[in-house]
Amino acid sequence: MACEDPDIKYLFEPRSVAVIGASHSPDKVGYKVVANILGGGYRGRLYPVNPQGGELLGLKVYRDVNEIEDGLDMAVVVIPAKFVPDALRSCAAKGVKFLPIITAGFSEIGNREEEAKLVAYARENGMRILGPNILGVYSGPSSLNATFGPSNVLPGNVAIISQSGALGIALMGKTVVENITLSAFLSIGNKADLDEADLLEYLMNHEATRVILMYMEGVKNGEKMVETLRRATQKKPVVVVKSGRSQRGALAAASHTGALAGSDEVFDAVMRQCQVLRSESLNEALNWCKFFANAPLPKGEKSVIITNGGGLGVLATDACEKYRVKLYDDADDLKQTFSKSMPYFGSPKNPVDITASVDHTYYDSALQAALRNDKINSVAVLYCQVAVCAIENLSPIMERHYREFKAASKPLIFAPVGDQAVEDSMKFLRNHNVPVTSDPYEAVSCLGAMYAYYRSLSDGRGTPEPVAIDRAGINRLAEAARADGRSFLLADEAQRLMELAGITTAGSRVATSAAAAVKAAGEIGYPVVLKVVSRDILHKSEAGGVLLDLGTAAAVRAGYRRIMDSCRAYNPEARIKGVEVCEQVKPGTELILGARRDASFGPIVMCGMGGIYVEVLKDVTFRSFPLTRKEADRMLKDLRVYPILSGVRGQKSRDTATVVEALLKLGSVVKECPLISDIEINPVVVYQKGLKAVDVRVLLSK
Amino acid sequence: MACEDPDIKYLFEPRSVAVIGASHSPDKVGYKVVANILGGGYRGRLYPVNPQGGELLGLKVYRDVNEIEDGLDMAVVVIPAKFVPDALRSCAAKGVKFLPIITAGFSEIGNREEEAKLVAYARENGMRILGPNILGVYSGPSSLNATFGPSNVLPGNVAIISQSGALGIALMGKTVVENITLSAFLSIGNKADLDEADLLEYLMNHEATRVILMYMEGVKNGEKMVETLRRATQKKPVVVVKSGRSQRGALAAASHTGALAGSDEVFDAVMRQCQVLRSESLNEALNWCKFFANAPLPKGEKSVIITNGGGLGVLATDACEKYRVKLYDDADDLKQTFSKSMPYFGSPKNPVDITASVDHTYYDSALQAALRNDKINSVAVLYCQVAVCAIENLSPIMERHYREFKAASKPLIFAPVGDQAVEDSMKFLRNHNVPVTSDPYEAVSCLGAMYAYYRSLSDGRGTPEPVAIDRAGINRLAEAARADGRSFLLADEAQRLMELAGITTAGSRVATSAAAAVKAAGEIGYPVVLKVVSRDILHKSEAGGVLLDLGTAAAVRAGYRRIMDSCRAYNPEARIKGVEVCEQVKPGTELILGARRDASFGPIVMCGMGGIYVEVLKDVTFRSFPLTRKEADRMLKDLRVYPILSGVRGQKSRDTATVVEALLKLGSVVKECPLISDIEINPVVVYQKGLKAVDVRVLLSK
Repeated sequence: MACEDPDIKYLFEPRSVAVIGASHSPDKVGYKVVANILGGGYRGRLYPVNPQGGELLGLKVYRDVNEIEDGLDMAVVVIPAKFVPDALRSCAAKGVKFLPIITAGFSEIGNREEEAKLVAYARENGMRILGPNILGVYSGPSSLNATFGPSNVLPGNVAIISQSGALGIALMGKTVVENITLSAFLSIGNKADLDEADLLEYLMNHEATRVILMYMEGVKNGEKMVETLRRATQKKPVVVVKSGRSQRGALAAASHTGALAGSDEVFDAVMRQCQVLRSESLNEALNWCKFFANAPLPKGEKSVIITNGGGLGVLATDACEKYRVKLYDDADDLKQTFSKSMPYFGSPKNPVDITASVDHTYYDSALQAALRNDKINSVAVLYCQVAVCAIENLSPIMERHYREFKAASKPLIFAPVGDQAVEDSMKFLRNHNVPVTSDPYEAVSCLGAMYAYYRSLSDGRGTPEPVAIDRAGINRLAEAARADGRSFLLADEAQRLMELAGITTAGSRVATSAAAAVKAAGEIGYPVVLKVVSRDILHKSEAGGVLLDLGTAAAVRAGYRRIMDSCRAYNPEARIKGVEVCEQVKPGTELILGARRDASFGPIVMCGMGGIYVEVLKDVTFRSFPLTRKEADRMLKDLRVYPILSGVRGQKSRDTATVVEALLKLGSVVKECPLISDIEINPVVVYQKGLKAVDVRVLLSK
Repeated sequence: MACEDPDIKYLFEPRSVAVIGASHSPDKVGYKVVANILGGGYRGRLYPVNPQGGELLGLKVYRDVNEIEDGLDMAVVVIPAKFVPDALRSCAAKGVKFLPIITAGFSEIGNREEEAKLVAYARENGMRILGPNILGVYSGPSSLNATFGPSNVLPGNVAIISQSGALGIALMGKTVVENITLSAFLSIGNKADLDEADLLEYLMNHEATRVILMYMEGVKNGEKMVETLRRATQKKPVVVVKSGRSQRGALAAASHTGALAGSDEVFDAVMRQCQVLRSESLNEALNWCKFFANAPLPKGEKSVIITNGGGLGVLATDACEKYRVKLYDDADDLKQTFSKSMPYFGSPKNPVDITASVDHTYYDSALQAALRNDKINSVAVLYCQVAVCAIENLSPIMERHYREFKAASKPLIFAPVGDQAVEDSMKFLRNHNVPVTSDPYEAVSCLGAMYAYYRSLSDGRGTPEPVAIDRAGINRLAEAARADGRSFLLADEAQRLMELAGITTAGSRVATSAAAAVKAAGEIGYPVVLKVVSRDILHKSEAGGVLLDLGTAAAVRAGYRRIMDSCRAYNPEARIKGVEVCEQVKPGTELILGARRDASFGPIVMCGMGGIYVEVLKDVTFRSFPLTRKEADRMLKDLRVYPILSGVRGQKSRDTATVVEALLKLGSVVKECPLISDIEINPVVVYQKGLKAVDVRVLLSK
């Protein structure tokens, strides 16, 4: 029986911390953690624990946690793996709430059972484990640095969750150099108990935290993470770096951590659905976090670029397209606003080019003008180092305007290019929290992340609706197929499933004689297609089991016999149920629709460009649950092929509402009928009105 | 009459330099240039020129260039625009060879005529102009800093050509911070005379230069540039940053320089054809240049990642896929090579993870092993800052191995992540020329640029071949259409052009009566398509001028009349030549093929995915001349749709050889028949054997 879980607040703000395995040797992690907690100015009570007792850094060393007189919220565990179970027993007796286990040597090297036992024991005794195999915990509000990472971490408003310990330490170090101030830093290692979602649950309401950065290697409980992320991103920006994007990278990730990395296409689509800001590289993610930590949320999307170099301005304009930053383009207003801040040969168009011939006072004037103009919502300032405008004069102006723009809810970012003086000024500005980057692309990338977040706040996601499918009928169908010893549905069963789900299919009957085939064709309407139905023949065309474009009863009769003959010749042992007589559907736009149970994220739906283009153009997108009509509709809009569905070059638009309906139905089947694991319809032919599912494959759960 | 051009060597290594407009006021450009030349330690003779005479920085100031006793290779002009013509006359009299004109106020503000006059005068008098509107010239081998940019430029092996002056100064400054050493820095401003191609021509054989970086805003003489770039990239890597990628960026570029920026799709394809390394951002371009400046050319493509952090290793693996870096994957050899350099729980697979538990000696050992293994051609070393492995101990090892790897022709790059100590070590390593970046993506991007260059050296380009087209017949056809007052060919003329070029079209005849249409349909074969032929009806479908799938003589007869009636109703004034009777072609793979005269690059050819997908998926590619069969073949391979042409999912492959032939023919028509400016065939239906051009549009030159 599990006890009630402790309040997660005490993981972030423990009133007392023990370090089990505190060491006298400065080389040891057990020393470093105690020293970091002391040096960081932790506001709570600290108890080093070591069976040898004595004194460490001026503190009494306890032989056992049970010797500690007061209550204990957290025990950081740094003893060798084999001693951990005993330590947990002591902690349970003491009533410890949280156990960050730094110790390695569990599931990451195959010792899954030992790890599972620790977790089970902890949960039974009302304790939660962070890790094992972690770097520790840092908390800004508590000034608690219970890690063996850098000792000079800056307290502030960025929370970082790192799955990797080694990279975590390095990242902590990098935050110091970049003046990124931390509200929390947690390494989650093997995620045996607490995972990203648990930490997010707290951090999304954590007052000190303005932005959350997660470094991930694999997803364990995707459904829970998605559910939590969706709520978190409505409260503050969440930036994710996930390694293992490439196939080879995913393999390397799987080999070096416990979690198996899923398909990156699915991960990426699901993160977008959760409105997470996904960054490819660490540097970009850190740049975004710095920006979110210091910039205000803008009031609108109109950006202005101010530059003294035309070339830089054009580069930034290119970057605006790439990162979806909208440039203000009211030419009259721009002229009115900026023409006084430049010589006659400058350009008040956006990018606003004050030219390389002016000094810092022109920047000041242009920034004043941008600040006063309510139609301008954010500004990127670029600077080419030229003698006439010294960076030493410009940086104090930038610092002042940063504060004024912040007060006016206008994000401001600065990208100067030049020599050592520019580097020095960047350091000065960074230390004064002014967002500054060394390249216009990086500056605009930060604005782009801000605007992606800005838009996500107003993008409604819709509410999941009940979807009408005949769940009981579908389950009976799947049970019957399974009772028949199969892991898939036959064509006629798949067609029946579509009927039960309410998705129109191309007309089709299974006929077990030539006469029945002719009768079926008459009912469906000529021309028809014939396909063999046999559990033993997977490659129907290869077996001569498919005939197209049969226009008469005579052709169907002869065709039935021809298929039987070829298939028997191809595989004399094959159990042949008969021949499927199918409507030969009219041309339309071909899509692929599907739903399946993903290893990481549970039920997901897919849609994309169909037919042979699926594999070649890979124009597909995915969504996980909860799936709303709005989200399903967005799936279509995410496709490159969308303009063809919406009507392009005078073509009529396609019935996207029915496609959306079909996606919701397919999703419901996989979500609500656990026996069905995988449905793929390729192609679905979509018309101006309605659609027809042509080829349906259904797999059953193992 | 133009004199013989001076040897361009003297632009880079002048024996004597005058500064016309030398000033006593330290704020003035005319002072700064003299001071920079003096301070830079120029090896030649320097003559300040100013009508006031006197002395400047210890040098005699000449009142006029003609007072100078010796010969004069170069005169840097910094006087106001209105005095420049007079100065040129003095220079001509003196026999000056090169005139870098820093002075602004010419074509960039509309004074095109004055600029053209200067150039004409200079050329007539055996002088060449760099600029006007430039930053000046820097030459490493001559220690000549004839710019008003930074004074502390480092001499070395990177040549930079910048179209922008302001950005040029800033970039020069940045090279100092990044320890990028320069062989030359030229700003080309308005490119009134000398352009990128002229400078490339010299730099491609310039001994001091290992890599060339060009910052471009627009292309003026594209054909010449392509021809030069193709030769230059066979000798050394050329990195290009071109602003104006986006539509809005291109507009901004056009407004702020003289050159009109062309379509970025065309520019990008042509740069790839020239095997130029195009970078999006300045930082990336500088990273690449630093790497090329110091790294050796590898002997093969097998790379290894060595890391002490699994996460960093996976990120770098992802980056390898993005930047096309091949990872060595002989598992046995990797195990043999690296297992001694890691604890038992490390991973000798690639990425080679020596784990965060080891010190610098393990890096040393792993690098030794990589150095000794001839199958390993390049190495990216990643480092997470951890206490057990101090960066202070690791950097000297990296420095030593950098030299050893260089001697063994193995590029090595280092990407450490951590705190200030890591920053300091990066500075130390940078000053010792060790390639180092702050992010695994940046490191792999450098290796990717190196390998793109490596592959370009062995990628043969083929030789242009004569292409058989009836040039005279095509010219007669175009002349007749023009004589008829048209700027385009009618359908039957376009069809005839295809015949003269040897490209198969769908069967088609123009009929001027219903009876003739029936006769034509009989010859072509049913079913047929009918289309109105009229110079006054451009939107045929809208006018009711198109009928599909006519299967009988009766249908054709009725159709002819129906088209005539609708079109007359649509536009009673229209001159209707008759009706085109066309073969209704069998389905195949639809492409779009074309050729046109591009404003920047002259004749170019295009191919892409055809039909309605052209606009939606934009899967198109371009090439300029000289166009070889090999290049035309690569165009097809560049398409995302290529797998469909080459045969995918059991489909038969398409006749790509005939598509390539058609591209060569289309290119020849536009290149060799100046009256034809634009041909577009959409769709071209490609079969297993042969193709059919279905809809051909031809425009004539203005």
